[in-house]
Amino acid sequence: MQPATDSVLITPTLEAARDAALVLAATPTRRKNQALEAVAASLRTSVAEILEANALDLAAGEANGLSTGMLDRLSLDLARIDALADAVLQIALLTDPVGVVVRGSSLPNGVKISQVRVPFGVVGVIYEARPNVTVDIAAIALKSGNAVVLRGGSAAENTNRVLVRLLQAAVDGVGLPAASVQTIDPFGRSGATELMQARGYVDVLIPRGSAGLIQAVVTQSKVPVIETGAGVVHIFLDESAIEQMAVDIVHNSKVQRPSVCNALETLLVHEAAADRLLPAVLAKLAASGVTIHGDDRVRALFPAAVPATDEDWGTEYMSLEVAVAVVDSLDDAIRHIRRYSTGHTESIITNDLVNAERFLAEVDSAAVMVNASTRFADGGEFGFGAEVGISTQKLHARGPMGLPELTSTKWIVRGSGQVRG
Amino acid sequence: MQPATDSVLITPTLEAARDAALVLAATPTRRKNQALEAVAASLRTSVAEILEANALDLAAGEANGLSTGMLDRLSLDLARIDALADAVLQIALLTDPVGVVVRGSSLPNGVKISQVRVPFGVVGVIYEARPNVTVDIAAIALKSGNAVVLRGGSAAENTNRVLVRLLQAAVDGVGLPAASVQTIDPFGRSGATELMQARGYVDVLIPRGSAGLIQAVVTQSKVPVIETGAGVVHIFLDESAIEQMAVDIVHNSKVQRPSVCNALETLLVHEAAADRLLPAVLAKLAASGVTIHGDDRVRALFPAAVPATDEDWGTEYMSLEVAVAVVDSLDDAIRHIRRYSTGHTESIITNDLVNAERFLAEVDSAAVMVNASTRFADGGEFGFGAEVGISTQKLHARGPMGLPELTSTKWIVRGSGQVRG
Repeated sequence: MQPATDSVLITPTLEAARDAALVLAATPTRRKNQALEAVAASLRTSVAEILEANALDLAAGEANGLSTGMLDRLSLDLARIDALADAVLQIALLTDPVGVVVRGSSLPNGVKISQVRVPFGVVGVIYEARPNVTVDIAAIALKSGNAVVLRGGSAAENTNRVLVRLLQAAVDGVGLPAASVQTIDPFGRSGATELMQARGYVDVLIPRGSAGLIQAVVTQSKVPVIETGAGVVHIFLDESAIEQMAVDIVHNSKVQRPSVCNALETLLVHEAAADRLLPAVLAKLAASGVTIHGDDRVRALFPAAVPATDEDWGTEYMSLEVAVAVVDSLDDAIRHIRRYSTGHTESIITNDLVNAERFLAEVDSAAVMVNASTRFADGGEFGFGAEVGISTQKLHARGPMGLPELTSTKWIVRGSGQVRG
Repeated sequence: MQPATDSVLITPTLEAARDAALVLAATPTRRKNQALEAVAASLRTSVAEILEANALDLAAGEANGLSTGMLDRLSLDLARIDALADAVLQIALLTDPVGVVVRGSSLPNGVKISQVRVPFGVVGVIYEARPNVTVDIAAIALKSGNAVVLRGGSAAENTNRVLVRLLQAAVDGVGLPAASVQTIDPFGRSGATELMQARGYVDVLIPRGSAGLIQAVVTQSKVPVIETGAGVVHIFLDESAIEQMAVDIVHNSKVQRPSVCNALETLLVHEAAADRLLPAVLAKLAASGVTIHGDDRVRALFPAAVPATDEDWGTEYMSLEVAVAVVDSLDDAIRHIRRYSTGHTESIITNDLVNAERFLAEVDSAAVMVNASTRFADGGEFGFGAEVGISTQKLHARGPMGLPELTSTKWIVRGSGQVRG
């Protein structure tokens, strides 16, 4: 396939990735696992070098006024590096998706067809200043037989440079191409722009990070994109919701880890249950330091709530804040969700079977739940093992993505001279 | 989900489509089949009206100097309308993909998860002047529970207007929203441009037509696209190929229907077999009126060949022409294919098991074949029933697409109060 791109800066990188991808596609599972084991070992023996580079990034970040949250995401320490190495070994234990036969049959004329999982080829990843993503996504790509071209945030440049060098050395050490893992960070923004244009070189592009980053990639890329991310997640407390369940699930969904995409952002309550449920549900949130943005009916029941503005609906706080509204019916709840949800995850708390089934059928999100915490919408919880991200698009993958979602398929057709009549 | 689009002209159409999609998603199979039966009946009783509109398009096409091929694709007659109605009834007989459980499990904490097929929602289709596509794709969309927004070629405007009106009346007649099938032809090019920007309204966009059309959509669209189409299809005659098999498969692949994407465009021959195979293979092609574009080694063996130029490699003739080259080895054949193929379909004719397996593994196309005609890369031949197109991208669908490829999935999560620890 002839690449259709005007790339100049990153063309040698992309060509090397394509060549590496050919080798990786034919590499048996055992060899890929050896590479992952070498990566984990190398991370553990290179802690000093990694932390030295990370200290440079942190110092620059502080000088540039990065927020505490961003500095935290940027920062590595011994425990975090150890956890990263463990995660890489976990990926080595997962089933290799490549070569799995999805389906197949014998045609009436004797031709045998089978659809088999194959790597995408070259996976591009554009992400922000989280150096753990560098190792994570490279390990996932390797296991699924893909070469990976990374574009990390400039704030993590020093750390990523060291990590990519370690990854390349480990891969090379087991006889696989070093170009299986490459970074285009040295080419800055121009490199990222070229990556988004590189049809024919890059088979799929995955943005990981803020809603702004994802929107930029999704709208600018000419390469097929898997959109991950933004979660304006809703819970609806139906008229028949059991109080303790409502209290516990809402609290867990909001508070257990507020900075992630499957955390609760908007709580809706049936007007016939608001009196009964809201005081206890909101009191428990408030006791954990959650700011409640409530509409008028919510504030009448829970005066500590601050007034919700139109902007609160549809806001992904990713912090200890929640928007709360009273709605007149299940229909109103579904309508509200349809209008403001990003299609990530929504849950209904109810004891009414008909309403539960209606919610599951009519809410069009990647994960729809009954009587469960929204925090379960997660590859790890679903048993996928690896954290590729959570797709909020409908094409190719929807919801938590495991290793198979980083593969394509091809049709293998075996004949004995058949022609079409 | 809030649409991110600057659409103005087609916004009412898209909003109506979105509302219709909600109804269709919850419509049982039987009702969708009734709609399809009504469409088929309406086509048969409206032949006069359809042909009258088609005559207007044909007259305008002739006045505008459309080629014979284009006029043929534009033209309907009684037999073609009858075949269209039959095809719609065939689609009614296919298994409904919506609601199929793809996989599921019980998590250790008792939460039950299942991944279920759901319609995309709103499918956009941009195509050229083939009125049969209007009916075909509308029927496929209906069966898979999707609303469809059509943008046909202006050359078929009158025919499409009548067809869409018939489709809408038939759908409405069984109590489904008429807006399940809509056209934006009245908005011309601006409508098509808006359709490609309509993120949040349109869930997937499928271009059908020439390579130029497909490239334009793929590079301009901000909506996720399934790329179908262009096939620079190769056959490699390996050293051990059985002569009669080579002659028959090459002839069938090129001649049986030269204007389609799975027809042979480039023939490669191992140099050690060129003397033995080429004269008979090319003589049979030439006897069917095929023009042979040969390299020097081909012309030495078959003087009637015209000299191939660099442009011939990579050309999708879609006519009775073929490019032919002698290569030194299987490796050279694979290299040539890697460089010039569009990743649609390639076949090796061989009696050597190792070479067959290498070709299947190393050629990265949607369909890779051993000893079979490339014409088998087809949804009908694969037993899918409906002709949605053949995807040449790796995301979501690859190769012939059936009804399930017009669906997404969602995760249904059923708990009994579980929270994440």
